[in-house]
Amino acid sequence: MGRDSAATKGRLLAAATEEFAERGVAGARVDRIAAAAQANKRLIYDYFGDKDGLFDAVIDAHVDRVIDANPIDAEDIPAYAVRLFDYLMDNPDILRLLTWARLERRITPGARAKNLNSYRNRLAAVEHAQHEGKVTATLTPVQILTLIESLALGWVGTTLAFQAENEAELEPGRDIHRKAMSEGLRRMLTDAPEP
Amino acid sequence: MGRDSAATKGRLLAAATEEFAERGVAGARVDRIAAAAQANKRLIYDYFGDKDGLFDAVIDAHVDRVIDANPIDAEDIPAYAVRLFDYLMDNPDILRLLTWARLERRITPGARAKNLNSYRNRLAAVEHAQHEGKVTATLTPVQILTLIESLALGWVGTTLAFQAENEAELEPGRDIHRKAMSEGLRRMLTDAPEP
Repeated sequence: MGRDSAATKGRLLAAATEEFAERGVAGARVDRIAAAAQANKRLIYDYFGDKDGLFDAVIDAHVDRVIDANPIDAEDIPAYAVRLFDYLMDNPDILRLLTWARLERRITPGARAKNLNSYRNRLAAVEHAQHEGKVTATLTPVQILTLIESLALGWVGTTLAFQAENEAELEPGRDIHRKAMSEGLRRMLTDAPEP
Repeated sequence: MGRDSAATKGRLLAAATEEFAERGVAGARVDRIAAAAQANKRLIYDYFGDKDGLFDAVIDAHVDRVIDANPIDAEDIPAYAVRLFDYLMDNPDILRLLTWARLERRITPGARAKNLNSYRNRLAAVEHAQHEGKVTATLTPVQILTLIESLALGWVGTTLAFQAENEAELEPGRDIHRKAMSEGLRRMLTDAPEP
């Protein structure tokens, strides 16, 4: 692919990210994406097949991005969980895209494979921290990750977020959740010292 | 409204619930809803204004339903949280509808008001349990509710759910999360006995 077409493809992906994050697959319009990217609509079909193919390309790129940006630190799981939460909140487009993908049942095998690979690395890191006595062994690594992920992902649907009528109103609730996760996970994952 | 028109309205709401849960607002088709309800499409406009109005009516009904079906028991918060999680998983249409409403930015003032009222009752119940020494006072009632809600709502986006390729594959992960919530919340909310 020449330099010009690579640049056009990049502009199409950027415009598609914005359009899909706002409207999902069903609500997105290929015309709007082509116009925003200052590209001919025909190129979308040439590069990505169709609207669904373009959405899949956007999702694959963002699954990579979330995983790369959030390496686990099993030595300090509460801090890792808060960083993951903050990343998702600071990048609302990514969280919206992944949520549309789930609702529209369009999660690609590629996205699943990348996620599974990252998940296995995170399980191993938690297990290692348990062996070193830094994390309780009362919960399994799988249980610990399901708790961390749901705490980081679930907040957008909670009452604190549901009641906010705009972005600015989200901040106080975010701060409450950040501190609750930090203290809650510390209590969950630390064993009381032996008497 | 006569008996016939109440019945028709009920059928329209039921058909709309199914269509919106599957496809969201943008993807839903009024024609399909009218056909599934064996009703004239014109009645949707007569009763609900437009497709958005029909969606809002469906959301309002379901917010009521979730709240009524899940009274808090602050004496046993881990069990309450697991019941809420199981309710959401056993009623995937409801969780999908509320998620579409969030993504499509269509949460009605009525839904917000009902949710806020229920939230205040739940806060009071947690505070009461804290006064009785049954729940730690290290976390505030708002923090405790944000943890419970995100644990119950967030699971659908976690790796355990992301990796499942169909409904049947969700069950083992659900069971892991149920046990993790139960044990995790017990550890979070119980203070160690005084030495």
